[in-house]
Amino acid sequence: MRPFDALISSTAPAPVARFSGLPEFNFVGGHNDPDVVPVADLAETAARVIAEQGHQLATYGLDSGPLGHYGLRHFVAEKLSDQRGIAGGPDDVLITSGSLQALDLVNALFLEPGDTVVVEQFTYGGMLTRLARQGVRVVGAPLDHQGLDVDALATMLEAMATDGVRPKYVYTIPTIQNPTATVLPVERRRRLLALAARFGFLVFEDECYADLLWEGDWPPALRGMPGGADVVHVGSFSKSLAPALRLGYVSAPWPVLSRLLALKTDGGTAAIEQMIVADYFARSFDAHVRGLKCTLAAKANVLMDALAEQFGTAAEFAQPAGGIFLWVKLPDVVDTKALEGPALAEGVAFNPGAEWSAEPAAARSHLRLCYALRDVGTLRDGIAKLAEVCHRETGVPERGANLPRQ
Amino acid sequence: MRPFDALISSTAPAPVARFSGLPEFNFVGGHNDPDVVPVADLAETAARVIAEQGHQLATYGLDSGPLGHYGLRHFVAEKLSDQRGIAGGPDDVLITSGSLQALDLVNALFLEPGDTVVVEQFTYGGMLTRLARQGVRVVGAPLDHQGLDVDALATMLEAMATDGVRPKYVYTIPTIQNPTATVLPVERRRRLLALAARFGFLVFEDECYADLLWEGDWPPALRGMPGGADVVHVGSFSKSLAPALRLGYVSAPWPVLSRLLALKTDGGTAAIEQMIVADYFARSFDAHVRGLKCTLAAKANVLMDALAEQFGTAAEFAQPAGGIFLWVKLPDVVDTKALEGPALAEGVAFNPGAEWSAEPAAARSHLRLCYALRDVGTLRDGIAKLAEVCHRETGVPERGANLPRQ
Repeated sequence: MRPFDALISSTAPAPVARFSGLPEFNFVGGHNDPDVVPVADLAETAARVIAEQGHQLATYGLDSGPLGHYGLRHFVAEKLSDQRGIAGGPDDVLITSGSLQALDLVNALFLEPGDTVVVEQFTYGGMLTRLARQGVRVVGAPLDHQGLDVDALATMLEAMATDGVRPKYVYTIPTIQNPTATVLPVERRRRLLALAARFGFLVFEDECYADLLWEGDWPPALRGMPGGADVVHVGSFSKSLAPALRLGYVSAPWPVLSRLLALKTDGGTAAIEQMIVADYFARSFDAHVRGLKCTLAAKANVLMDALAEQFGTAAEFAQPAGGIFLWVKLPDVVDTKALEGPALAEGVAFNPGAEWSAEPAAARSHLRLCYALRDVGTLRDGIAKLAEVCHRETGVPERGANLPRQ
Repeated sequence: MRPFDALISSTAPAPVARFSGLPEFNFVGGHNDPDVVPVADLAETAARVIAEQGHQLATYGLDSGPLGHYGLRHFVAEKLSDQRGIAGGPDDVLITSGSLQALDLVNALFLEPGDTVVVEQFTYGGMLTRLARQGVRVVGAPLDHQGLDVDALATMLEAMATDGVRPKYVYTIPTIQNPTATVLPVERRRRLLALAARFGFLVFEDECYADLLWEGDWPPALRGMPGGADVVHVGSFSKSLAPALRLGYVSAPWPVLSRLLALKTDGGTAAIEQMIVADYFARSFDAHVRGLKCTLAAKANVLMDALAEQFGTAAEFAQPAGGIFLWVKLPDVVDTKALEGPALAEGVAFNPGAEWSAEPAAARSHLRLCYALRDVGTLRDGIAKLAEVCHRETGVPERGANLPRQ
């Protein structure tokens, strides 16, 4: 007991433990592949842009103002326009310190304790903890193999309207949904926008994985579609380049951006990283992301093969459309939250499904496996170890690697 | 009126205006001198550290964990130990995204609406707006030419105790106080720590300008003194290097740091900036800061000369001990808040005293002038312009540049 213990806010979260390194078989967190970081290009770019623009570092916000580095906003605006159908220029983009800050700013702008929001049934765990801390009521809308089930959402919204409840927003990750890695078809996007108009909620679109769609159709962003002008759209460079950079962005109408700016009292987002990414990606975005997607798709295949080999039919999952994670269902007898501790003791870390679900019980036997960070050998060994621990703790899988387990 | 207007939180601040560049005569904001940014060194350092450590960018928090880049924490710990008397190693330091994030984290950890805190009578305006937003009662303690008047504080604390009020913390900027640029003598520091022990409040020490003490005695940090082990100490690289980097730090007991970490849900602080500053400052901190202080002291002299020339005895100020700002008192007839608009229309921006004061009326005729950003010619022209506008609006100064004004 220290004197300051008595001074700490009653709402403060529990302290964290000392960091002791990442687990060997780390399937947790949106890390990227270390070998795909374009180290030589970034080093060369950094030296050049600092030499050219370094004196601006003396000024908060550089010479670009609080929206962020002009060149980076220019790049984002062009990318959104060319690839995602979102019209606009550099002044329609706010650079944030990772898309996490974007989530925080949007939540701070719209939410008050007691508000209701709709999220996808299974969704980003960091968003769920944020919403819980803000004292907001969270309602999960069903997902299927094509993402948000918009018909089911319509039924839910009608029932809520009957009860006099209007959700502040529907938070959706339409393009490579986290954690299910699905892509919402354009027709469903249209209907979601129509529901927003009818029920008067905000569409909060998180596209932080969208750049990593491996192949096939790339539907426009909700914000890029007719009726999407009021959508608040968030993206990130964590997945397309590197998470330790802490760069994300918001594309939204000026009346929203100008209020987010009033809440962004951080003195600006890290300037050197903005300079580097603006310059490097203006030249190399397409080529870099093409190579990255190749690597990730190959790793996803290794992971799926390892799961099939070690878990057989006990591990259910759909082919991901892109991204860095796989959403896996184990038999109902497995409680993945209970499995977390024993697995970690063997060096295996994963996200228990309950932490990625609006209704924890609904994902009791699910887990999320992130596969970008470790090499393919470690991925295979990690899944073998996971199967071993899982068998020991729950009897599942009964067979592994074509042999019955003892 | 857009549909989302109805969805915005009732507590959201007003939107900000579009950025249209910094004013020509900009005396606002903690900017640095652009010519003193060590551009060539930073460029060289960046290329090298990215080449050496760049693969780590794939991992949130690098390989160093959530406290921040290990090398930067090592540098901060050594600096605090060697120069500020604060014992501890890299694991006793949390790197933050500017010291503003440090303020936010400490406030989030300790404060609840309705709490009382004590600040220095004149203090950092960004802290006052933060405290207002948190619904906290702010009490100002008197300052004199040696900083916080600890005897007056003792009397205040006794009166508060009689009323059953215990402030959560006393927020102090003891070493180059913002805005008065004073240094709290070691004897007062001792008595402040004794008051903390007696009344059970936290000492919240902000040393974000302390590296810029030009000459003379450098008292130890409060956290570095006997009885200071529970002090929460905050510092910054914005002033010693460049504000657009967004790097600050907290030194505090682990039970505090571990709880601040639980609140720091930003995915980490910008990694490339941390790598660069760790490497560059480990080699060049003393030399760089020595040169910077020379430049700043010279600019302060130019500013004081210009004020004397343009305002004569109408502008009262004390010789600053260091830093980047001057706190000026004009005659009582001048309301600096009312002067702000007309001055800005002429390209002159300053901080009206009321925004830097726990009790706005007490600093009605004060203003804060930051002098690091602009060259000396612009400083002189800006003060001449300010005198001209001030004379036109208020009749003060009556004489300027040795001539009676029309």
